This record gives sequence, C-alpha cells and structure tokens, in this order.
Amino acid sequence: MGTTPRAERAIARCRELALCTEVEGETTRTFLAPSMHRVHELAGGWMEAAGMHVRVDSAGNLRGVLPAANSDAPRLLIGSHLDTIANAGAFDGVLGVVLGVGLVEEMVEGTRTASPSGAPLPFAIEVIGFSEEEGVRFAKPFLGSLALVGELDAATLGRTDRGGVSVVDAIRQFGLDPNGLPAAILDDSAFAYLELHIEQGPVLESENLALGVVDAIAGQTRIQLSFTGQANHAGTTPMGRLRHDALAAAAEWVIEVERYANHCDGLVATVGKLDVAASASNVIPGQLSASLDVRHASDAVRNAALDHYLAYAASSAAVRGVTVTQATLLDSPAVPMDPTLSALLATAATQATGSLPPALVSGAGHDAMIVARRLPTAILFLRSPGGLSHHPDEAVLPGDVEAALATGVEFLHSLRDDRAMLERVTARRPRSRREDIHA
Amino acid sequence: MGTTPRAERAIARCRELALCTEVEGETTRTFLAPSMHRVHELAGGWMEAAGMHVRVDSAGNLRGVLPAANSDAPRLLIGSHLDTIANAGAFDGVLGVVLGVGLVEEMVEGTRTASPSGAPLPFAIEVIGFSEEEGVRFAKPFLGSLALVGELDAATLGRTDRGGVSVVDAIRQFGLDPNGLPAAILDDSAFAYLELHIEQGPVLESENLALGVVDAIAGQTRIQLSFTGQANHAGTTPMGRLRHDALAAAAEWVIEVERYANHCDGLVATVGKLDVAASASNVIPGQLSASLDVRHASDAVRNAALDHYLAYAASSAAVRGVTVTQATLLDSPAVPMDPTLSALLATAATQATGSLPPALVSGAGHDAMIVARRLPTAILFLRSPGGLSHHPDEAVLPGDVEAALATGVEFLHSLRDDRAMLERVTARRPRSRREDIHA
Repeated sequence: MGTTPRAERAIARCRELALCTEVEGETTRTFLAPSMHRVHELAGGWMEAAGMHVRVDSAGNLRGVLPAANSDAPRLLIGSHLDTIANAGAFDGVLGVVLGVGLVEEMVEGTRTASPSGAPLPFAIEVIGFSEEEGVRFAKPFLGSLALVGELDAATLGRTDRGGVSVVDAIRQFGLDPNGLPAAILDDSAFAYLELHIEQGPVLESENLALGVVDAIAGQTRIQLSFTGQANHAGTTPMGRLRHDALAAAAEWVIEVERYANHCDGLVATVGKLDVAASASNVIPGQLSASLDVRHASDAVRNAALDHYLAYAASSAAVRGVTVTQATLLDSPAVPMDPTLSALLATAATQATGSLPPALVSGAGHDAMIVARRLPTAILFLRSPGGLSHHPDEAVLPGDVEAALATGVEFLHSLRDDRAMLERVTARRPRSRREDIHA
Repeated sequence: MGTTPRAERAIARCRELALCTEVEGETTRTFLAPSMHRVHELAGGWMEAAGMHVRVDSAGNLRGVLPAANSDAPRLLIGSHLDTIANAGAFDGVLGVVLGVGLVEEMVEGTRTASPSGAPLPFAIEVIGFSEEEGVRFAKPFLGSLALVGELDAATLGRTDRGGVSVVDAIRQFGLDPNGLPAAILDDSAFAYLELHIEQGPVLESENLALGVVDAIAGQTRIQLSFTGQANHAGTTPMGRLRHDALAAAAEWVIEVERYANHCDGLVATVGKLDVAASASNVIPGQLSASLDVRHASDAVRNAALDHYLAYAASSAAVRGVTVTQATLLDSPAVPMDPTLSALLATAATQATGSLPPALVSGAGHDAMIVARRLPTAILFLRSPGGLSHHPDEAVLPGDVEAALATGVEFLHSLRDDRAMLERVTARRPRSRREDIHA
C-alpha cells in the first residue's frame, strides 16, 4: 500500500520517542530510566488528546483508556513496550504503542464523522505501553507485562541492576509507589490483547509481503554443551585414534544441528557461541563450550530435535574419545495465539489490503506471550526491511504502517459492528482466579 | 631395556636443572634468565669433571669440548637446548644436553678402561647447551642455534621482550659481550650434529618402542582464515538461504581439514583456534577467525593440502553466502636429516637395543633444523610417556634413557673404531663460505 498522513504521523512519533534516551546520539532507554518520563509525557499527551484517560501504573506501564458507552463494557487491550536495548532502533515495541494510539484516534474520528455526538464504542480500548520487555536492566525480560498478569513476584522485585538498585527501588526512584502494584493487575473487564510489532526477521520481506499474523510464539531451549577431548601438540600428534580433538567433534555436531533443522519444517537451531579453552594455533583443542538455541511452534517437535542433537553430540564425539556434557539454561514452551482472535485479525488484514496475510511463527519473545497467560491474544507483524532489528538502522515502510493501521481499523470495526462476533470473542475471556474460587 | 646407574644419573641431573627457575614451584627458564647462571654452573661442572674445556659463548650457549688426539681433528657436535617454556617439564631440551655429557663420560671412562693413559678419540666432541629454542622471551625461537650458524641478524638482535629489553641488552645483562658473537659461529672443524630429544608425541608409546630416528623435520604452514557471513537473530531468521552462518561454514571446513589429512599419509592438519566475533547464544555467527596448522615431511604434499583446504573453504562457504579471506603467518619448508648419519644412528640403536628403530617425522621444530643448514644432522627420539610435553608431568622412562645412552655409545664407537666410516661421515662436512669464495 502507499503511505498516508496517518502512517507518516505514526513513524514521526516513533522517531520523536527515539530521541528520549540515556545516551546522547543513540537510543538507549531501559526500564524506568529517567528518559522514560519524557516518553510518558509525549505518548500520554497523544492519548489525552484522543480523549483517553491516562495513568502510569506502579510497574511503570503507560495506560490510556478510551471509555465505552457503558462503564461495565468489556475492554480490548492494544499494546507493546516502550523500553529499548542499548543503541536500539526506533520501532521495536514503540511502534505497537504508537499504532495503538493511532487506532484509537481513527475510531474516535470515525465515530465523530458518523454521528456528531460521537457515539461511543460497545467496548473500551486500553492502550498499554509496557515499561519493560527487553530484559536489559535487570537481566530478566517482560517486567511490565508480568506486572499486568500479576506475576511480578518477590524474587523479581528483589533483583538488582549493575548499580545495586533493586526493581522496587527503581520503581520508587521513578516516583512510583510499589504498594500500588496490585492495582496494575488486569481486571475482569479485559477480554483480549492485540499487539502490533515489527517482525524482526526476514520472512515477510523475502516473500514481498507487508503483514503477517502470528499463530504461535515458538518454544525455546537454550543449552550449553561442553566437549572434552585432550589438548595435544598439533605437530607431533598424528591424525586418527591418537587425537581427541574437541573442535572436530563439535564441528561435526554443528553441521548436524544445521542439517536436521534444514529438513524439519519451522525448526530453527543455532550454535551461536563456540569457545575453545586455552586455544593456540599449534595445540589440538582439548576443551570447548558451545551454545545451542532451538525453537519451534510445537514443543513436541522441539523436544524431538533436542533429543536428536544431544544423542548425536554424545555418540559422534565418543568415536573420537571426546565426551559431552550439557546444562539447560532455558526451556520455555511454545505459546499459541488465540485462533478466533487471530482469524479475525487475518480477515481484517485481507479486507484492508486485499490479500490474506501468512501465518507466521514468532521466533522471538513478545509481551503477548505473557499476556496470553490471562487473555486471548493476537499479534500482527509488520515487515522488517533487511530483516533488521536491535540496530539503529531498524526501519519500517510507510506503506506497511498504513496497511497495519487499516487492518487495525477493520479489526475494530468488525468488533464494533458485528455484535455476534464481539460476543463470541468476549465469551472467550477467562474467568479471574477469584471467580473460579467462588464459582 | 632396564634402568642403569648412568640412566638414573641422567634423569637426576635433569631434575636438578629443573630446580633452576624464575618462578618458585615450577620450571620456567627463558633465554638468559638469571637462573640460567646456575644451569651453566651445574652442567659446566659436570663437563669439566669429564675433562672438557667449557665456555659460554656470546649468545649464552654453554659449550664443552672434549679434545681429540690432534688439535686439528674433526669435531662432532652433540646438543640440545637449556631454556624452557613457562611451567615446563624437566626433559624437553635439557635431556639432550645431559645425555651429551653422559656420552662424553662414557667415552672417557671407556678409553681409560682400555688404556690407563686414556687414549684420546680420533675426533673431538663438543656438547652444546643452546641458550634459546622455545621462543618465549623474544617471540622468536632458535636464538642459540641461529648464533651457532651465524644467522643471528640485526633485526633479531634488536627485538625486545615485554620489558623493552633487546636481545643485545639481554646478552649484556647476563654478563656476556655481544661483540663476541662472531666467535660463537661454527668453525670448519665441526663435521656433524647429533641431537637426542624426547619425542613430544605419542607415536613411540603407541608402538611400544623406546627410540626412533628422525628422517625429517616437517615443513609447516600457519594460516589465519576469516569467515564473514551475516550476524542475525537466531529465533527470527529461518534456516536455509536467509542464513549466512559463518560458524556452520567454518565447521564444514574443519571436518574437511580432518578428513583430507586422515587420508594423506604423514600429513597433520589442525584447526587450533576458532573465535566467533561478538558471539551470543541467540545470534547467528556473522564473523569468525580460525587458525590452520599444516605439517608434512614433503613440501609438495603440504602445499597440495593447503591448496585443497583454501579452495574448499572458499567454495563451500560461498554456497552459504559466506566469504573467506586468509593470511599466511608462517611458511617453513621441511628439513631432511642427513641420510648417512641417520643410518649410522639407526644401526647403532639396533646394536644397542636389538631392534631397528622406526624412522619418524618430527612434527615439532628442533635446534637440529637450524644446525642442518650448516652440518649433516641426525636426531634420536626417546619415547614420551603419555605423549606429554610442555607440561610439568612430562617424563621419560629410565629404560629408554639407558637405550639412548647405549645407542649413543655405539654411534660414537663406530665413528671411533671404523676409520672408513669416520672418513665417509666427515667427508660430508660442507666447506665454509669463506673457503667457497677462495676455492
């Protein structure tokens, strides 16, 4: 699609927020850094101008609510995160918040056009700018969305950053009250969560497509493997059975990691780190450690791949007199998105752009995977030019932003205008735990 | 063979010299370190007690000469080095010097037994303890033997150690006079060089043999390769053509380096270093550097292997969109040992031990490869238990030391008693350059 003033405005807003930084000349804005105050001022101002009620909850999440006709109407959440990695781009996270505000503006504008009195929606919209997703400051991601689902536990609150400041202290230093954290938790009116996010990968670009609908966030396993052979003189130790080369063993395994994943649809498997201990050009490697990162939308497929990789490492290394041990650093199951909500989103994208968006698996984690623990959730991906993210050159195409806005408007219209659809979607809202206990 | 008092004495002397160190509790003795004075005192004392004339030349080499009947008799050199790496064992280098002294003692004792007047040999023996072979202090090996062959050039003399001390300064600080370096050069009486050294590899042990005769020191090439692909997100970049994984490319090449060498008799090829730049478990490796060490007794075989390895790296990496560049750090041709002298040594070993020693290629460099530029040279290897060297646990078996001493005695007796053999060997002595010019 071509660009539009609303798409240009969204991009300009992202660029403006990118100037809020802890490091002059780049965009670096971690959890509750001082520059986040200015982000709240700017984005909160846009929300208020659109008629939203704005607050910053005790976890530092920026939350703007566009009320519905009735105060007990169900509430749709739209959001993403406002923090960044070090030396970030302008769109990862931030774009989803800005597009949430843009969609509210469109709905408000649309109802004004339809009726001068501004007939309200049959559901409220809450736009959330999560305070933390990247995990930079406290080496743990998703602090903002964990607060939303009530899972910001004492251990997490006690974590400290490099300066020895705890999460609780950081909340206080930002001018917030940790005692208010319970009030940050979702109430029962929320019925669904929609996130718009850049893909952070090359798939949409390689297929020349603007948008995709995520059907699952991949489960992920991170393992550290140690290969132990025997260091020896590279010149005096002949080839063959007298060598116990840890690097040759690991190389054989690296190739198998790739070969197996190449033949397993949707699997990604990566050896990103490989460190030879006390390495020298004239010494046969005796010891090394390697990382393994495996992701797939199906936990069964991922676990089968892991079993193969570990068995292969052990058996192929054993032939060389090399032993392998491993430690699991992360084992996170796949998070499926809500099929009904995702189908509604795909239909909206088809109406807005004229073509059905592909179903994608997200290889990266997103706030949606946390919110999905409590609410039906859907994610719309926008193409990442060059597959680039976590980089100052991260970009979006204005036409893709317009396509995302148009899709969001169609999505909201279908909930507004099709009472049966809204009832079908809100019926999927889970009961809160308290209701479970008393029911 | 079983142990003997002379073998036990040689081992005890090595252990005594290992106590001369710069670092308490280990053996660390680099070029002209203060502890080398004590080594000269001890080993020089053993030489003098055996009737040798002892001096330390201006390069710091300890040199003891057992005179012959005539002052213009030809002179056989026996030696190895007295310096060590950091935290070394007791036998690498030192054993060859100690066994040289032991052989002189045997010859002196033998002639005394044969005739009370001590009938002298028809050739002189000079035992040399080279001051430097390991290359630790000035990052350049063989300083002692280079001085002997007159190739300690101005560039080498100007090299500085970590403390900014030059080779010339180090010579002065040790109490020697750099102006005397020309007098350290071999004169025309020298006719051959014999080195006894531990194998520093597992071959003799794996064949259950005490001794081997080196027929060549392998040529060696060291290359640094850079593999450049594209770093990318391990979760969001699918397998296949969208990945440009530098580590997967390098792994394929590491396996081929090994496979080719496994099928090429006598070739050793090792990837000892492999460093992924900015590695992280969730990032596809975009850039890495790797070392390649290739050795063979035939330069043609070594160069053919190199051509294959570099071509394979480039072509297999190109399929992945990974490029490879390389820089040659070392390219040193093979050094054949003298066939006549080596055959004499093998015959002596057969007479001494009852079995023909195998011909070995030395994958490591030795002083002999420098001295061979001027003199017919032979090397006798002693088994290294566990293939271990450059390690505090480096060892020798007393029976093997006895076998080496018995072999050396046979070797010297055949030169002493077989006038035709001595003439045949000394006839192989090259003319000096000055004679070449005037002839």
